[in-house]
Amino acid sequence: MTRPLGVAVIGAGYWGPNLVRNFSASPLTELVWVCDVSTERAEATARAWGGGTAGVTASVDDVLADPRVDAVAIATPASTHAAIGLSALDAGKHVLIEKPLAPSSEEAEKLVVAARDNDLVLMCDHTYCYSPAVQHIREWVHDGVVGQVRYFDSTRINLGLVQSDIDVFWDLGPHDLSILDFVLPPGAGPVGVAAHAADPLGVGHPCVGFLSMPLAGGGIAHINLNWLSPTKIRRTIIGGSEKMLVWDDLEPAYRLRMFDKGVDMSESELEGEDRRELLVSYRTGDMVAPALPEVEALSQVVAEFASAVRERRRPATDGEAGLRVVRILEAAQRSLDAGGVVVSL
Amino acid sequence: MTRPLGVAVIGAGYWGPNLVRNFSASPLTELVWVCDVSTERAEATARAWGGGTAGVTASVDDVLADPRVDAVAIATPASTHAAIGLSALDAGKHVLIEKPLAPSSEEAEKLVVAARDNDLVLMCDHTYCYSPAVQHIREWVHDGVVGQVRYFDSTRINLGLVQSDIDVFWDLGPHDLSILDFVLPPGAGPVGVAAHAADPLGVGHPCVGFLSMPLAGGGIAHINLNWLSPTKIRRTIIGGSEKMLVWDDLEPAYRLRMFDKGVDMSESELEGEDRRELLVSYRTGDMVAPALPEVEALSQVVAEFASAVRERRRPATDGEAGLRVVRILEAAQRSLDAGGVVVSL
Amino acid sequence: MTRPLGVAVIGAGYWGPNLVRNFSASPLTELVWVCDVSTERAEATARAWGGGTAGVTASVDDVLADPRVDAVAIATPASTHAAIGLSALDAGKHVLIEKPLAPSSEEAEKLVVAARDNDLVLMCDHTYCYSPAVQHIREWVHDGVVGQVRYFDSTRINLGLVQSDIDVFWDLGPHDLSILDFVLPPGAGPVGVAAHAADPLGVGHPCVGFLSMPLAGGGIAHINLNWLSPTKIRRTIIGGSEKMLVWDDLEPAYRLRMFDKGVDMSESELEGEDRRELLVSYRTGDMVAPALPEVEALSQVVAEFASAVRERRRPATDGEAGLRVVRILEAAQRSLDAGGVVVSL
Amino acid sequence: MTRPLGVAVIGAGYWGPNLVRNFSASPLTELVWVCDVSTERAEATARAWGGGTAGVTASVDDVLADPRVDAVAIATPASTHAAIGLSALDAGKHVLIEKPLAPSSEEAEKLVVAARDNDLVLMCDHTYCYSPAVQHIREWVHDGVVGQVRYFDSTRINLGLVQSDIDVFWDLGPHDLSILDFVLPPGAGPVGVAAHAADPLGVGHPCVGFLSMPLAGGGIAHINLNWLSPTKIRRTIIGGSEKMLVWDDLEPAYRLRMFDKGVDMSESELEGEDRRELLVSYRTGDMVAPALPEVEALSQVVAEFASAVRERRRPATDGEAGLRVVRILEAAQRSLDAGGVVVSL
Repeated sequence: MTRPLGVAVIGAGYWGPNLVRNFSASPLTELVWVCDVSTERAEATARAWGGGTAGVTASVDDVLADPRVDAVAIATPASTHAAIGLSALDAGKHVLIEKPLAPSSEEAEKLVVAARDNDLVLMCDHTYCYSPAVQHIREWVHDGVVGQVRYFDSTRINLGLVQSDIDVFWDLGPHDLSILDFVLPPGAGPVGVAAHAADPLGVGHPCVGFLSMPLAGGGIAHINLNWLSPTKIRRTIIGGSEKMLVWDDLEPAYRLRMFDKGVDMSESELEGEDRRELLVSYRTGDMVAPALPEVEALSQVVAEFASAVRERRRPATDGEAGLRVVRILEAAQRSLDAGGVVVSL
Repeated sequence: MTRPLGVAVIGAGYWGPNLVRNFSASPLTELVWVCDVSTERAEATARAWGGGTAGVTASVDDVLADPRVDAVAIATPASTHAAIGLSALDAGKHVLIEKPLAPSSEEAEKLVVAARDNDLVLMCDHTYCYSPAVQHIREWVHDGVVGQVRYFDSTRINLGLVQSDIDVFWDLGPHDLSILDFVLPPGAGPVGVAAHAADPLGVGHPCVGFLSMPLAGGGIAHINLNWLSPTKIRRTIIGGSEKMLVWDDLEPAYRLRMFDKGVDMSESELEGEDRRELLVSYRTGDMVAPALPEVEALSQVVAEFASAVRERRRPATDGEAGLRVVRILEAAQRSLDAGGVVVSL
Repeated sequence: MTRPLGVAVIGAGYWGPNLVRNFSASPLTELVWVCDVSTERAEATARAWGGGTAGVTASVDDVLADPRVDAVAIATPASTHAAIGLSALDAGKHVLIEKPLAPSSEEAEKLVVAARDNDLVLMCDHTYCYSPAVQHIREWVHDGVVGQVRYFDSTRINLGLVQSDIDVFWDLGPHDLSILDFVLPPGAGPVGVAAHAADPLGVGHPCVGFLSMPLAGGGIAHINLNWLSPTKIRRTIIGGSEKMLVWDDLEPAYRLRMFDKGVDMSESELEGEDRRELLVSYRTGDMVAPALPEVEALSQVVAEFASAVRERRRPATDGEAGLRVVRILEAAQRSLDAGGVVVSL
Repeated sequence: MTRPLGVAVIGAGYWGPNLVRNFSASPLTELVWVCDVSTERAEATARAWGGGTAGVTASVDDVLADPRVDAVAIATPASTHAAIGLSALDAGKHVLIEKPLAPSSEEAEKLVVAARDNDLVLMCDHTYCYSPAVQHIREWVHDGVVGQVRYFDSTRINLGLVQSDIDVFWDLGPHDLSILDFVLPPGAGPVGVAAHAADPLGVGHPCVGFLSMPLAGGGIAHINLNWLSPTKIRRTIIGGSEKMLVWDDLEPAYRLRMFDKGVDMSESELEGEDRRELLVSYRTGDMVAPALPEVEALSQVVAEFASAVRERRRPATDGEAGLRVVRILEAAQRSLDAGGVVVSL
């Protein structure tokens, strides 16, 4: 029996306490430090969620110098992810970083390279990928149940916090982009991205935004993001050639539904004629909503991180997954600057 | 007391029977002819819905030569709208044309010019604009209740009929584009349009498509169209500076909801400092769902057409409204061809 | 190939036109007469829905004397069902009667006896039993999929027409009582009924009412009826030992849902002790919503009636089914008079 | 400025931790003791939720002997409520008791008398009465907005914990009965109760149950309770002569809706005739869903308890309210034993 992974959580703002709580509760990990520039905040977090065992500090250096620390989880502002992450990797620590991995692909790449060179685990906390619904979707897509993905259409809107430092794409987009990356088979992802947006409040950056992404197989992905909607919608529709899926995260009774519905095309040459005719056929079968366990996705993130470290393998959402998401967000910005044209990925 | 308007319906395919039924039922109009290239179809339509008084013919010329005919309603395939409409206007008949007004802005313009030159009423049958919900929305926007429109986000998806002759933009788009045109105040409409789409079935044209349109006032309109969705959604969200609206046509208990919700911005210069700080404030008040009468929108189309003719005035959705919708659809095609860039209107 | 069944519809009020339309459309039947005390109403109904072939009369005698009439469908006020039905059976006609079969069990019994003595088909138009959802439920219960029915809980409420001649039990109750009778296996039905009600408007009879019925197997059925509800609910929940069903007639996307959910009990004698302990276990599996065909239930009523006549067999909802429903309604009235005590059936 | 109320929480099972958390968080109260027969459980509760200041004990006597304790909150099994409550009142402590106040009206009465004789506050923790939705309902009913209450129809069903020591009426019923008691004006409550139930699992007591209660003003209250339902429903419909209310606790977007809908009756003597005719008129106006604050009802319970003690006044849900609920539950049992007849209250 191996000893638990020693973990330090760096950053005790919005997301940090959730990491602290889950690392503290997991039998696979032991929370060693809660670190924040405000020791007061670090202490409050450690007391409320840390299980009473974690030390508190404002010094990242102290954390990285501690031999009990095998790994760090970074939940600081995105602009600091790369610097802290690189220091941690240099110090020989495995690293979990809150999404987005970094505010630029250049920095994200440095993290990926450093992890590879040091033979350490680098994981991006794409939390939704570890929810039971998304795990089901991924399995159904990868196992061929869904067939070829014809479109992926995600809506994530509500009257949310208008952020002053990042726009709606960088705030909400990583959720849907990481899910898209996670559920599609390798090689089936977006080949380009176009972005359209508005800043009707005059905040200085988009509060309402739309991403359109042609997929490798001829389909399309589309993401609708909005901080200013009166109703909250969290819904992803995936149209496959065999099945169609609807994931509605606000429908507790049936979050995930699989429809045995489809549209099929065949071409027939009419007898004795040159012209071909499109034959479209429709199929409408039963709907199934699988029973989903009520587990917190973040507890699965923690378990995957600890297992990946123990087994020295890539986690399901590794640094490269985080990098791919950042690359799309950067390309979306270039599309916005260029009037909405599709920018190749 | 004036005599009822004599009307001929031309085209007895999908939409024609609805026109026949409503012109036959209205006290303001008298159905004189049902005309279709198939007299069999014309007869079946006249018998089932025509009230027993209408004649049946396959000849448009006969219809236009009949002095009892004051007006014609055209529900033939879109490619024939302009030719038949121009003939009717030349013959001195008022004209109601099913959406889209014409398959090109060039033809649509000819219709508008001919109606103007002949001093005749030309109306486009933008049916949804006459539904109680859309009438409410227009009033609330025009009266200032909603405030400035920050975004208009419409979703019209279901497992619908995949059309072989027109794409999803020309099939479903006129509904949302005509509603957008109808509810926004003059001068507040789209200044450009970008289109993204996919043809994952290989039909030869888009089956899934998205339109993004910057609005004159800094907001954005967005339309999500899909023939391949397992669930049917008909929902429009309008975010105003004062109120937010949700119109869900599939929620009979409260089709239209007005939320007293908002986000407001103010800038404050921090005392003694140069930098300004964004102050975002949120407002969450009551929701009201107005009682809406259960009337068929098409009966209101018929009433508006008859009244406009009688009063020799422009109908609420005149030829120019139809032309504006066609112009956006054409620009959307140009955007598609150009990789999704915003095309100015 | 046999000739179609000649049918006369007697009564052209609220329900009659629906019968006329369906008998007229069915290839198995030929509509011969539309009969109503108001020939004007009969004519309007025949013209609008009768397909142009049916005669019109105010005389039931003429209808019954016509040898082309094999069967009559009676949709007159309930108080006249027995008299007209008995005359028709005496005249050798097969009979379909709108629910309730008769306003008293005495009269209903006379109809059942007369049909049996004359070897004629007597069917009660329990329309809902022929809807795809209820057909599915019956199959699932009869085939053992659902297991033992532990409870049947039906809610049928809305802001409906307050009737002046009948109370809410006789108006809405036959729907749920006939469904209960139809889906339960023989011998598993109610063994008693208790009724509670209120007349808060002062109409003179109940506008809000509740039925509770112990079932033969130890379960319970419950029906909630209300003419004065602001929201419309049409929902039946059936709890079985193996599966649980929810039928929501206002959810077009999934009217019928089967939950693989359950609660099981076992008793265990604790080792070395006398006392027993209840062990309750819970099961939560997938939900399935079967694809249901979009057919009008009444067309299936017509088909079943015609087939039963042709094959000289009992229809699925025969006179005895109608009689059982009437007996429960009568017993419910006795319960009401006796302060709500359970009256045995 | 007065010092905070010193409070001991007795019972650290299911509900106790919630009391501990809220008493600990309130500025009006100071948590002095957490008391439980298991000191281990008391300690765990105090540590997790007690804010670090509370002592831990297994002795009720020690708690009652402590002069710092002004009041006790009792969350032990219902069978012990009366004994502990009476000791506390004898010791001069104010008392808050979890619902139901006691397992018999005899014991509940003793509590009420003891509180009165000692001039101490006795409050029953009818938590739902302090939720924003129920507070709104009470105001609307008491202020006359709703008009006369014609019916109150509550459904509280799900696949819940089958209890071994109490039946579904005593487990779930206090919620709806306390709400009914709270929202109706004095003198308008139930004048009788009838109960029907089933024990289809063979647990030894009802798992599915229905209460029907004629109201003083001619209306009716009805409560549907079920531990075995596949879907969770928490919905109360209140039909008033002026407005109709729907409270759906599982609809976060609009938990409470007020419909301007109604049915009105008038009698008219037809001119020159003896017979009178019922004139029923319907009204369908707007629906309003008020913005409700997101506060925890239990924090309002704590605030009301502390304020009532400070002001030496009756709390909104005093011992007599708790007694009224217990009396209905007892009468329901008598009704069950008597075959479901209405038992007078």
